[in-house]
This record gives sequence, C-alpha cells and structure tokens, in this order.
Amino acid sequence: MRMRNPKYKDEIIKKSNYLVNGDINFSNDFPLHIEIGMGKGNFIINMALNNPHINFIGIEKYSSVASVALKKLEEQDLSNLKIIIDDIQNLEEKLKNKVDVIYLNFSDPWPKKRHAKRRLTSKNFLELYEKFFKDKNTIIQKTDNDSLFEYSLNELTEFGYHIDELSYDLHNTKIENVLTEYEEKFSKLGIKIKYLKATK
Amino acid sequence: MRMRNPKYKDEIIKKSNYLVNGDINFSNDFPLHIEIGMGKGNFIINMALNNPHINFIGIEKYSSVASVALKKLEEQDLSNLKIIIDDIQNLEEKLKNKVDVIYLNFSDPWPKKRHAKRRLTSKNFLELYEKFFKDKNTIIQKTDNDSLFEYSLNELTEFGYHIDELSYDLHNTKIENVLTEYEEKFSKLGIKIKYLKATK
Repeated sequence: MRMRNPKYKDEIIKKSNYLVNGDINFSNDFPLHIEIGMGKGNFIINMALNNPHINFIGIEKYSSVASVALKKLEEQDLSNLKIIIDDIQNLEEKLKNKVDVIYLNFSDPWPKKRHAKRRLTSKNFLELYEKFFKDKNTIIQKTDNDSLFEYSLNELTEFGYHIDELSYDLHNTKIENVLTEYEEKFSKLGIKIKYLKATK
Repeated sequence: MRMRNPKYKDEIIKKSNYLVNGDINFSNDFPLHIEIGMGKGNFIINMALNNPHINFIGIEKYSSVASVALKKLEEQDLSNLKIIIDDIQNLEEKLKNKVDVIYLNFSDPWPKKRHAKRRLTSKNFLELYEKFFKDKNTIIQKTDNDSLFEYSLNELTEFGYHIDELSYDLHNTKIENVLTEYEEKFSKLGIKIKYLKATK
C-alpha cells in the first residue's frame, strides 16, 4: 500500500520502540504470528491487544503507511507486538524457523498474468515461507478479490497445503475476525470477504 | 439425469449380472469406491477397468440412464464393479461402514436456494455419507458449475473436511482423470472443470 508521507513520518520512525532493532527477541516462548503487508496496522494491533499470549510482528515495506501504525502505537504499551519496515524477501535470516502463523490480508492481487510471481501466495513466496515456519505451517488469508482467492487455493493445495477453513462470505460465518481498514471500508459496500486457513 | 427409456431397458435390467442383489459382496478385501449419480456409466466402468484392485459401485436413481450403463457392460466381464439402481438415501443399510471413496461427478447443482438441501454436498448428505465411510472419509468431486463448487468447498470445510487437492481447471493439471460423458462434451466447449479432493 502506497500513500503520501505523513508529516510525522521520520520523527515517529526515529523514536518508536516498536521497531525491531537487530534480532527478534520477545523474551518468552509464546507462538509468533506475522502479518505480511500490515498497512496501517489495525489488524495486527487489535490482534495483539486481544491475544496477550501470542507474539505478533507486523511487516510493511512502505514506511509511509507503517508510520501510521507506529503513530497509533504511541498510545499503547504492547509487549507482544513488533513492527518491521522492510520487504519480506529481505527477512529470511531474521524470521528463520521462528514463525507459527502468517496472515495475508488484502494483499495486492497483481491481476496481470505476467505479475503472478509477485502475488504473496505464488510458489516462490510459499518457498520463502517454508524457511520462516518453525514447526507446522499455517497461512490465513483474507481478500475481496475472487481471482486472487482462486489462485491462492490452487497454489496452496499444489504446494502440499490442506485447506482447513474456507468461506466465500466471511462476515456471514462464526469465524472470529478482526477487521483491517480496507476490510471495514469494502464490506460496508457489500463486497463479500473471502477467507481461507491452510496448513501443512 | 433423466432421459427417455431405451427400448431395451426392462430386458437388460432383468438379465444383467452387474446389479446388486441383496447384500454387497465382492468376496475380497479391496477398497470400495462408489459413484453417486453414475449416469451412463463411462466414468465408473473405466475406473473399474483401470483399477482391478479396487471395487466399484455405480449408483443411479434413474433406471432409464442406468440401463445404458448396463447395456455397455454386456460386453465386459468385470468382477470389481456392481451397479445399484436406487436413491442414495435408501442405501444406508447396504453401504454402512463399507465405503472408502465417494465420487460426485457433475451432480445436479440445484441452483435455487430453496433446493440447496438436495445438493449432494449439503450437510444432510454429508451426514448420510458419515454412515457409509469405513475408516477415513474421502470425497472427490468434479463439476463445471462455479456455484456448486463454491458451495461444496464451504459445506465440506464447515463439516470438518480438509481440502487436499483442488483445481479450477482440472484438464490443465497433472491430476489423473477419467472422463464422464458430460465432461467430455462440456470440456470440448471450453468449459473449465473444477475438481476437489476432500478428506476427513
């Protein structure tokens, strides 16, 4: 997600305690859930607030957007949440054998076929995630985009994942759900949210 | 699948050795695969020919269509295939704890919402299948109908099934596939075949 730089961007990034500095260290053994492309952070912040016994890392490559999340966090004192501003493809070493769950929320669908490799559920990304996962792999995806959803189901099952949960209309199920900014806006317009939980 | 009665219907049903008479008895311990709604039988007959160490039962409620399959079988001597002409809902006792795999090929999509209960992957059918399965449940479905496919994925995962294999374009994968009559006709028209394998 790209946006204009907020005025406070540089300052907030400089002083925030939430940014990972060097190695990831939560000083406990709680499971680690990461969100790739956290955007403005509503989802990961609320997840961290609701689940004190899970550690969370929100990852966002655009510092403009990430700084909005950091701004929100100024008022919070969360010991189970960290933020990384970087491309996921640079984080192999940092996240190696550390992750239990990956969230992919409203990722860029990259609709053109020649851009398929950039989709976060393409084979090359699934191979990268293999290195991140500690034990059992779990990927949870939400999207409003039918083509991306279909693509993900195909790629994941082909890669050896099993689809354990699935909905073509998430807000009409009993599945627990924390909204992202995007999701709130789009579901108000009547757009159905697709959801899957895949394990391997 | 409904059709006009072929001339030979009564005669062929009377003399066929393939019809189950009383209890199901294959006099061996091979796994049992059944197709619910076998239509004219191309799929189940070819499956039986290709897999001599699996027992197959083709089930069809319309005797007109089933008799076409029986007619084809006149020229075959297959000890691993039986046919039942009946509604699946009458077969609870006959199939109890006997089945390993259920095939649902191009089942009636029953597009109207008020007919959803008639779809062969609706909850009440999944409950019936629970009684059929011997050990592990496996359901393999093929369809050209997007809505039925979506419905099936929802119902199956909600019922506790895991989706192990899935394709939105079966003929473009390496998944082994025996064509049904319907599938042959429709895929020639460029219609993509959706496929899933669910286990529980």
